[in-house]
Amino acid sequence: MSQTPEKAAPVVGIIMGSQSDLKVMSAAADVLEQLRIPYELTIVSAHRTPHRMMEYAEAARKRGLKVIIAGAGGAAHLPGMVAALTTLPVIGVPVKSSNSIDGWDSILSILQMPSGVPVATVALNGAANAGILAAQILGTTNAVVADNLEKHRAIQKDKVMRSVEQLNRGEFDVD
Amino acid sequence: MSQTPEKAAPVVGIIMGSQSDLKVMSAAADVLEQLRIPYELTIVSAHRTPHRMMEYAEAARKRGLKVIIAGAGGAAHLPGMVAALTTLPVIGVPVKSSNSIDGWDSILSILQMPSGVPVATVALNGAANAGILAAQILGTTNAVVADNLEKHRAIQKDKVMRSVEQLNRGEFDVD
Amino acid sequence: MSQTPEKAAPVVGIIMGSQSDLKVMSAAADVLEQLRIPYELTIVSAHRTPHRMMEYAEAARKRGLKVIIAGAGGAAHLPGMVAALTTLPVIGVPVKSSNSIDGWDSILSILQMPSGVPVATVALNGAANAGILAAQILGTTNAVVADNLEKHRAIQKDKVMRSVEQLNRGEFDVD
Amino acid sequence: MSQTPEKAAPVVGIIMGSQSDLKVMSAAADVLEQLRIPYELTIVSAHRTPHRMMEYAEAARKRGLKVIIAGAGGAAHLPGMVAALTTLPVIGVPVKSSNSIDGWDSILSILQMPSGVPVATVALNGAANAGILAAQILGTTNAVVADNLEKHRAIQKDKVMRSVEQLNRGEFDVD
Amino acid sequence: MSQTPEKAAPVVGIIMGSQSDLKVMSAAADVLEQLRIPYELTIVSAHRTPHRMMEYAEAARKRGLKVIIAGAGGAAHLPGMVAALTTLPVIGVPVKSSNSIDGWDSILSILQMPSGVPVATVALNGAANAGILAAQILGTTNAVVADNLEKHRAIQKDKVMRSVEQLNRGEFDVD
Amino acid sequence: MSQTPEKAAPVVGIIMGSQSDLKVMSAAADVLEQLRIPYELTIVSAHRTPHRMMEYAEAARKRGLKVIIAGAGGAAHLPGMVAALTTLPVIGVPVKSSNSIDGWDSILSILQMPSGVPVATVALNGAANAGILAAQILGTTNAVVADNLEKHRAIQKDKVMRSVEQLNRGEFDVD
Amino acid sequence: MSQTPEKAAPVVGIIMGSQSDLKVMSAAADVLEQLRIPYELTIVSAHRTPHRMMEYAEAARKRGLKVIIAGAGGAAHLPGMVAALTTLPVIGVPVKSSNSIDGWDSILSILQMPSGVPVATVALNGAANAGILAAQILGTTNAVVADNLEKHRAIQKDKVMRSVEQLNRGEFDVD
Amino acid sequence: MSQTPEKAAPVVGIIMGSQSDLKVMSAAADVLEQLRIPYELTIVSAHRTPHRMMEYAEAARKRGLKVIIAGAGGAAHLPGMVAALTTLPVIGVPVKSSNSIDGWDSILSILQMPSGVPVATVALNGAANAGILAAQILGTTNAVVADNLEKHRAIQKDKVMRSVEQLNRGEFDVD
Repeated sequence: MSQTPEKAAPVVGIIMGSQSDLKVMSAAADVLEQLRIPYELTIVSAHRTPHRMMEYAEAARKRGLKVIIAGAGGAAHLPGMVAALTTLPVIGVPVKSSNSIDGWDSILSILQMPSGVPVATVALNGAANAGILAAQILGTTNAVVADNLEKHRAIQKDKVMRSVEQLNRGEFDVD
Repeated sequence: MSQTPEKAAPVVGIIMGSQSDLKVMSAAADVLEQLRIPYELTIVSAHRTPHRMMEYAEAARKRGLKVIIAGAGGAAHLPGMVAALTTLPVIGVPVKSSNSIDGWDSILSILQMPSGVPVATVALNGAANAGILAAQILGTTNAVVADNLEKHRAIQKDKVMRSVEQLNRGEFDVD
Repeated sequence: MSQTPEKAAPVVGIIMGSQSDLKVMSAAADVLEQLRIPYELTIVSAHRTPHRMMEYAEAARKRGLKVIIAGAGGAAHLPGMVAALTTLPVIGVPVKSSNSIDGWDSILSILQMPSGVPVATVALNGAANAGILAAQILGTTNAVVADNLEKHRAIQKDKVMRSVEQLNRGEFDVD
Repeated sequence: MSQTPEKAAPVVGIIMGSQSDLKVMSAAADVLEQLRIPYELTIVSAHRTPHRMMEYAEAARKRGLKVIIAGAGGAAHLPGMVAALTTLPVIGVPVKSSNSIDGWDSILSILQMPSGVPVATVALNGAANAGILAAQILGTTNAVVADNLEKHRAIQKDKVMRSVEQLNRGEFDVD
Repeated sequence: MSQTPEKAAPVVGIIMGSQSDLKVMSAAADVLEQLRIPYELTIVSAHRTPHRMMEYAEAARKRGLKVIIAGAGGAAHLPGMVAALTTLPVIGVPVKSSNSIDGWDSILSILQMPSGVPVATVALNGAANAGILAAQILGTTNAVVADNLEKHRAIQKDKVMRSVEQLNRGEFDVD
Repeated sequence: MSQTPEKAAPVVGIIMGSQSDLKVMSAAADVLEQLRIPYELTIVSAHRTPHRMMEYAEAARKRGLKVIIAGAGGAAHLPGMVAALTTLPVIGVPVKSSNSIDGWDSILSILQMPSGVPVATVALNGAANAGILAAQILGTTNAVVADNLEKHRAIQKDKVMRSVEQLNRGEFDVD
Repeated sequence: MSQTPEKAAPVVGIIMGSQSDLKVMSAAADVLEQLRIPYELTIVSAHRTPHRMMEYAEAARKRGLKVIIAGAGGAAHLPGMVAALTTLPVIGVPVKSSNSIDGWDSILSILQMPSGVPVATVALNGAANAGILAAQILGTTNAVVADNLEKHRAIQKDKVMRSVEQLNRGEFDVD
Repeated sequence: MSQTPEKAAPVVGIIMGSQSDLKVMSAAADVLEQLRIPYELTIVSAHRTPHRMMEYAEAARKRGLKVIIAGAGGAAHLPGMVAALTTLPVIGVPVKSSNSIDGWDSILSILQMPSGVPVATVALNGAANAGILAAQILGTTNAVVADNLEKHRAIQKDKVMRSVEQLNRGEFDVD
């Protein structure tokens, strides 16, 4: 689904260079829905729709967005170019797309931004973490989001502890 | 200088694994001073002072910090471990320290965090960008900071334009 | 099976960051069973259960463990952080997990520890060798273990020699 | 010198992301002067002057440029973004700048363009070859340029042959 | 099909080191057909048919070719050697063939040409972009080709915009 | 088959670290059979049968071998250790085995021998070329082998030329 | 100094492939002296003195050694070959020697040992950590060594805390 | 010196792509002089003098050469192209020249030759080993050369043993 489930105006914009990035990038949307943060999701190509990219980035703050999550693969210019066109925090998701060299090109062209224009880069295909990082940014001043993040983390811990117990009960066969 | 020049309580904590990281990481402090954001700066080693790291990370939100900038080199565990111990946004700066393999180890051990615990990674030795990203995070709700960021960016643009003019006047000798 | 088959108190602790590492890490358990060394095996996540990790590492020596084998993938902080919290020898197994960049991130974030806190790193997915290395450590003072290691090695040699004979009899078709 | 020595309108535009790229990129200008091809040279930063970049790229064909040479380092977005904004051939020069990881980031973020928007990438710091390639493009329809290229190549061959002769006369001391 | 569909004399020569490169390299032919540029396509092996390579390269300009597209994998010498034997622009396509190490060998042996002999390198397996770049070179003086390139680009933009609309209508299921 | 088809005493010894290398290394045997060069083929493990390795290498020249082809994967010590134990030429074949990191470990541990002890390294999985190189070494003084090599090469050229003709007849569908 | 300062029989053997490795490897000796562990130090070349290597490794346990530390650069076969010839634990130190490719060859040829023959690999040039790891192995059964290791670690922590205090007193100039 | 010191006709040809490779490649000449093998040394550029390269390679066997040593850096095509033009054994020396990316391009473009055309690749800058390998090839049928190789190796062993003795006498200060 490309629109936020609540009617609330989106505060996070998720964009990606191509429709093929959707299967990776949808994890960011999933996390934001779990954390009840209104978002929008669309396709903005740095190389095929540069004017659309420019308009999206320059209008973002005025439209009420507080964080932009941008995913791209190969020579991944979208996150860095959006970061050049807004002073909102931009989270970059390197996507291991079919035209990528094991993801190295995606990582380096997002991470290695020059001084003055940062991109907050997450792991290769790390769209879920991009969603959490967006929430952490909102949570610096929004107590409800901060609280939801603590709950989200507690769930992760519980999941590990349940694995521990299953292992103790011999439910996994390590042989 | 390890304390913020203003008396205001710090909202950004800059930490690093070793005193030798200071010459890289001080660029984050410089940027925050330029943008008039109160910060603190200290040394926290994941491997030599793990309890100190744990206390620092777990007390950070209560103490009023909103963003943590953590720099480290080699098997750089500080940013990721701090991120595991707080839900504040953590910005990781891979440092090309003397014990690093051209920076690849620093980058990969900060960037490649598992799902659930993001680190906002910036470029190798990109401490200045870590400072700007911290300001961008604060600027999502603080209009003064957001305004200072716009001014900071305008200064960057002016610097490029002055280079263009010098080049046009033949002041650089390209031959 | 997560507990040592003998009733003897475990002397090797095998831990891993996630249940998904089990299919790699169980090879360490297999080797220790063959060499009749009591071990325990559980899940300890540096990023999802940092307190559990701290308690595990700090209690290990008192509980009678002599060696810890820690496996993790991606930004693999578990082996190094455990090594920071105990002076027992810690053997690190870089796991080529699904979120790893061909294993490079796992290797570098385990291997490149700073001076003062070593991790004895084995090959990518080298859990069997971690088990043997743990036995070699115990075998420095335990003659039975040392003897079992010699037998284990003789078996390896015999296996090669049987391949040689099969090849000589033309049982493999190299064309 | 930033302007072409002849009064002829420039047909090649040499741009670079930063003044610090000038010591590498001036080799492109040198070659074009040797080959008597009118060029212009200026600074256009994708990240610090994105609007200037857009205007430069979109006006290039109308202004009479036939080829653009764009050099940049680190997360080098300039060549690819200019290629997205014009259908002129764009030659990309990966620069091993101080903020680059041994040049790998520069190379991959210029080379790995998505289908539809090529950048003609040359070797790391290969600005001289960018100049020659620009001349080769012009030489497909300009017989004078094609002829000058043949002469340029003959000079290269002569230089090798003179080294051969010096070596034969024992003028180099290989011991 | 190895010959251009029109009767017009070919202006682009597509060559490749081996028949197995055909499934990658045919994308260059496809693009040239779409853009109505006459081309020829054949196999020329630097290592198995070095004399044929030499003759092909040295006769190319006389035969009316204006651009050569050369694809090869592994120790990919074809593009660079052809570039050494003609002053026509040579576009190199690194092919990720079965004997290639993830494409790194193909890329580096095509890209890293010494000063004096450029190869216009495109992305790994980027044969379609090689076709577009060839057209861009022709389009510097051929207005029809330049116009077709603009149309080709508009089609790419439209394709992105249709994805955007489908996403807005909820036609992709991001969950 | 592990023995040479002729009764002639073997002049090339093909060895490999493990039975699992056989499917790669058998290509060396195939080439030697085609070129009618007597060879032997067996398994010698540097790490599991170090004494066997030492005996094999030290007896090789006396037994009439003139060239040794050694294949291994991962930390591939066999070629270099054999080269340390004989002054016969040793050809190393890096094998991309299941325990190898994309072949990089195999390549580097065979190629990067210290001064004094060369290994003639061929491409990753390049066992066929190892066979040809062995023949080329023998062909420096054996005119029949030299002649067979010329014929072998002519067959390769003919194969390329047949592909060219098939392509010209439109027998491959490049669309 | 090549002999342990105490008269006690050495329990750790430090070996290296070449005299040029001494400036890296002496850090292992330094640490063992600090921890009062008797050691010996000598040069054993896998490639230049293979018989000496074999004798050293096979005699090690009988001579009373409990751990071997082996350092080497480039195609670093010494640690792995020694590990093949003894069942004592072998610690490998990848040395970034002059003939090494940024240390990658040294790391991979030590780390990537096949199943059955582990090498406990430490960081590139990590000889000090090799010394500590040797002590940790001895400390599994020697309470004095274990105690010294705790003291050694406390000193490291104190050093960090003194840096913290100096920073607090403004003794480092971060601007 | 570019000519062999004896009047004997050269049996090894040492060639390199550029005069700047001489300081690396002269080590091959040094070794051949020590081993009293007549050689010649000259410059042959694949890219600047392709016809000279072709003639050199095709005349080599007739002129009495038995082995060719070819060194080159960057996109190093010389060894592979020479190997395509002769069936003599060709030894390739990857040179870490100024235009090389840490030597990776030189290594991969020499090593990764396609099936049918081997290059016997030695270590980065490993020209001395290229000389030894050439001698080993000659030594397969020339007993004097074989004997000299044994003596050369004994000298290497002696050198190590003298270092061992110096170390034992405390002549190196490892602290």
